[in-house]
Amino acid sequence: MERERQAVARNRKVVLRGYIDRAPREEDMELVDGGAVELRVPEGGGGPAVLVKNLYLSCDPYMRGRMRDFRNSYIPPFKPGSPIEGFGVGRVVDSTHPGFSAGDVVSGMTGWEDYSLITKPEQLRKIQQSDIPLSYHLGLLGMPGFTAYVGFYEICSPKKGEFVFVSAASGAVGQIVGQLAKLHGCYVVGSAGTDQKVELLKEKFGFDAAFNYKEEPDLTAALKRHFPEGIDIYFENVGGPMLDAVLLNMRVHGRIAVCGMVSQHGVTAPAGIHNLFSLISKRIEMKGFIQSDYVHLFPQFVDDITRHYRDGKIVYVEDMSVGLESGPASFVGLFSGKNVGKQVVCVSRD
Amino acid sequence: MERERQAVARNRKVVLRGYIDRAPREEDMELVDGGAVELRVPEGGGGPAVLVKNLYLSCDPYMRGRMRDFRNSYIPPFKPGSPIEGFGVGRVVDSTHPGFSAGDVVSGMTGWEDYSLITKPEQLRKIQQSDIPLSYHLGLLGMPGFTAYVGFYEICSPKKGEFVFVSAASGAVGQIVGQLAKLHGCYVVGSAGTDQKVELLKEKFGFDAAFNYKEEPDLTAALKRHFPEGIDIYFENVGGPMLDAVLLNMRVHGRIAVCGMVSQHGVTAPAGIHNLFSLISKRIEMKGFIQSDYVHLFPQFVDDITRHYRDGKIVYVEDMSVGLESGPASFVGLFSGKNVGKQVVCVSRD
Repeated sequence: MERERQAVARNRKVVLRGYIDRAPREEDMELVDGGAVELRVPEGGGGPAVLVKNLYLSCDPYMRGRMRDFRNSYIPPFKPGSPIEGFGVGRVVDSTHPGFSAGDVVSGMTGWEDYSLITKPEQLRKIQQSDIPLSYHLGLLGMPGFTAYVGFYEICSPKKGEFVFVSAASGAVGQIVGQLAKLHGCYVVGSAGTDQKVELLKEKFGFDAAFNYKEEPDLTAALKRHFPEGIDIYFENVGGPMLDAVLLNMRVHGRIAVCGMVSQHGVTAPAGIHNLFSLISKRIEMKGFIQSDYVHLFPQFVDDITRHYRDGKIVYVEDMSVGLESGPASFVGLFSGKNVGKQVVCVSRD
Repeated sequence: MERERQAVARNRKVVLRGYIDRAPREEDMELVDGGAVELRVPEGGGGPAVLVKNLYLSCDPYMRGRMRDFRNSYIPPFKPGSPIEGFGVGRVVDSTHPGFSAGDVVSGMTGWEDYSLITKPEQLRKIQQSDIPLSYHLGLLGMPGFTAYVGFYEICSPKKGEFVFVSAASGAVGQIVGQLAKLHGCYVVGSAGTDQKVELLKEKFGFDAAFNYKEEPDLTAALKRHFPEGIDIYFENVGGPMLDAVLLNMRVHGRIAVCGMVSQHGVTAPAGIHNLFSLISKRIEMKGFIQSDYVHLFPQFVDDITRHYRDGKIVYVEDMSVGLESGPASFVGLFSGKNVGKQVVCVSRD
């Protein structure tokens, strides 16, 4: 019975071992053999479902928040012993949902495993395959790209000629923010943690200037050097001492879009921010946001970014590790800045 | 020559002795005899000017910023050896400006002295005397009232039924914010530093609840108790640990109007704020503001507040000390919360 033999596959999973209160380490996750999985949606389930073969998985800093036993967030924690969840791109193997058929390529929330049964298929998006690499749907055309898009246009209220600073600027979100700001006619400076990334910012992404924050003994002075007239817009990805230095360098009526504070993810007692008084004297607006509040803008985002990409006006750099087993190290690397560009894990190419 | 004898008066001044880097103390200021002053605008000056007899002087926390040798603020520092400057209400003694005549009552920036020569009379506002006490033009109908008005309506975007928290709630600004929020249909809680002030908030200003922050070992728990569903709007007057506690108690899409951080005025190294990550998870907007950016709303403010006051819908409490010599102690008292209500100094009643 050839068909039945093919209809079963081995399913490996990356599971969370237990909740943590510090920066994630590889040993907080474990690759386990999930046994055999039938390659079809089980009968008698609660409703229509989709079985996907995972191709690409996304490593994003927000996922660290789901490793804490903290139920008061906008997203619930992971379950210890169960697979890590995150955005992914996969191929539909079987579907009992009328919107999806075997062979469709989809993106959405999935598990860190070879095959995932998606019981809420309405959250999946069907991907029209094109000249755009599939994995880009986790970055340029996925959540990070959309975060950059709504953060820059909806939160920063940018004006042509304004001075924009982006931290973690070569990351999944930062590289897009910087390029959008350039397209908008702004002067853009980025910070990153290695000279290689600084080069990338200037040579590949077209930032006007960039610096390695690890080589700056005085961040306030570094920003003063790059922004003698001050900063109009700060796209905040890191928190901590950089935010304090920025607060001293903002211009009157400046805006700070608070997208992430990756430097603070690992610490139980986050660094204190001391210069908030600048919010008053400079009349600064500081606003946190989450891209999912702006889903109505997603189609427009896809149109705009696809057009810019095809016109060669936006490029994207990703850092791809190969094999599900590389997931934990790739994820952990985000918090020490090991990744160069958007971190993804290739589980399978087809 | 009766007329000439009357046209000279003794002028006392409160001068700043030198710049400071800590909370102000009485001895940082000095009452000096400024000698005799001719009671008319000197001839040959640079342009039209107004000589006023100061009646009431305002003590405001922002003035502490002018005691530092720091020129990068929205307002320049005081000059050591020269009188303290601040808002005041005075009576015009002589004027070479066509808009003002002897006998007019005016409010505006003046000096801490018996008589001030105002060389920029265009910044003065003429006061129509009425049933409203003259000193209220330094509070309810002056800069603090206007700060409360623009801060609440323009920065907080309040909606009926929302949960509002005001710190330093019995102060010059806080008491008005709380009453405006009640008029807007919000649920309002205030914090203050003595039981007497807490009583005032509940009994006089009609706050729904109030607490003495000095008697709360855990501010986060205190706010949780008063706002089991969280805070929609925080009107920030104090900074420091209260802000950190508020950040943990905000609701999704909450707003923080940053008006002042009086707890931080005295310290060279301000307390660190550790919970800014909440800005992201709760999508909070935190915005600093200065009332002078909204002068176009001043006439509407005066109309609205005057009507509310006459209708008995807003009350105002001020703490008046008597005599120019009482100025330094009254000002210094702001930073330890000695004042009950808006602090003013009565230099002369007529």
